[in-house]
Amino acid sequence: MSRDQFGSVFLIGAGPGDPDLLTVKAQKLISQCDALVYDSLIPLELLELVPKQCQLYSVGKRRGHHSVPQKKINDILYSLSQNCSCIVRLKGGDPFLFGRGVEEASFLAKKGVSVEVVPGVTSGIAVPAYVGIPLTHRLAGSSVTFVTGNEGLNKQRPLVNWRSLALSTDTLVIYMGLYNLEFIAAELIAGGMNPQISCAVI
Amino acid sequence: MSRDQFGSVFLIGAGPGDPDLLTVKAQKLISQCDALVYDSLIPLELLELVPKQCQLYSVGKRRGHHSVPQKKINDILYSLSQNCSCIVRLKGGDPFLFGRGVEEASFLAKKGVSVEVVPGVTSGIAVPAYVGIPLTHRLAGSSVTFVTGNEGLNKQRPLVNWRSLALSTDTLVIYMGLYNLEFIAAELIAGGMNPQISCAVI
Repeated sequence: MSRDQFGSVFLIGAGPGDPDLLTVKAQKLISQCDALVYDSLIPLELLELVPKQCQLYSVGKRRGHHSVPQKKINDILYSLSQNCSCIVRLKGGDPFLFGRGVEEASFLAKKGVSVEVVPGVTSGIAVPAYVGIPLTHRLAGSSVTFVTGNEGLNKQRPLVNWRSLALSTDTLVIYMGLYNLEFIAAELIAGGMNPQISCAVI
Repeated sequence: MSRDQFGSVFLIGAGPGDPDLLTVKAQKLISQCDALVYDSLIPLELLELVPKQCQLYSVGKRRGHHSVPQKKINDILYSLSQNCSCIVRLKGGDPFLFGRGVEEASFLAKKGVSVEVVPGVTSGIAVPAYVGIPLTHRLAGSSVTFVTGNEGLNKQRPLVNWRSLALSTDTLVIYMGLYNLEFIAAELIAGGMNPQISCAVI
């Protein structure tokens, strides 16, 4: 059986929340897909774009509420690829930045399913922009680090080295950091960061 | 004179090169603007979206070819805001990430002009995604740093601390680094980075 007989899975970033920050490419694919598998963090207005006969699968994902385990999501996507032509996997933000998109992409690729990634606007860039905070500045900042504040406990590598990050990057954007805020702040200060440095919690 | 009598400037990220990676919001604004001021790094297909009577201003910007100085760009934008209703300032990638967008936004805001930022997909995320490189992985990488490899010589803060970055972040994305590649590689290795680490030049 050749690959042409299977469907393609498009791993799409839905952007940071404003439905108009979806890309044109994503909009086109959503409005012609046979099946849509989506996280709870996407703007729900986007569901109105799908064709009438499209199958919809909500697979959840909020802190502490993994309604559908990752393995099950992988299986749903694989199964759809055997029966549908165009499958959209829609994730909040960008699928490859703290998105677990790579796990789904690798799983499908290993099974011979065609996968294409459609990048999205990540909240780490968009949200500061909306409130007027530039992440870099020609005269003042040359680097920005995006880091998860909600580390998986089963990482195979050392956890985030907050002390080392404290002085090596100009701007630090922490995703999902609210729960560990106190710990992160203490580690950064222990690493030499000025306790008076400007900080926004958005 | 109230602000309502002036036009609004929309500082828009055009995305990484594929015209379909423009956001829906950007597409709407471009197709109704009275004036468009654009860099040479944007996908030129986007110019076809503007209305017939739209005024077009190309302000250049490639390495070593700053066809229009920043001050002059600021002046063009201000002058347009006094005569047009909707002005689009279109920049490659994202306007606030290594884009000097903040300089234009501050200049206009100080003069009382209404400015709105429309974030875009940055090449540092999109380009690795297109070639299948995830920037983070739940089991292996928790942080990614975006850094310019083409430092301004008149920064008011210390230049990029490559040696310190070498070990503090999991993934490093270097923008405009080709010209300084040899220097950057040597500094990273001096900072303790494994010389055998995987690296892609895209």
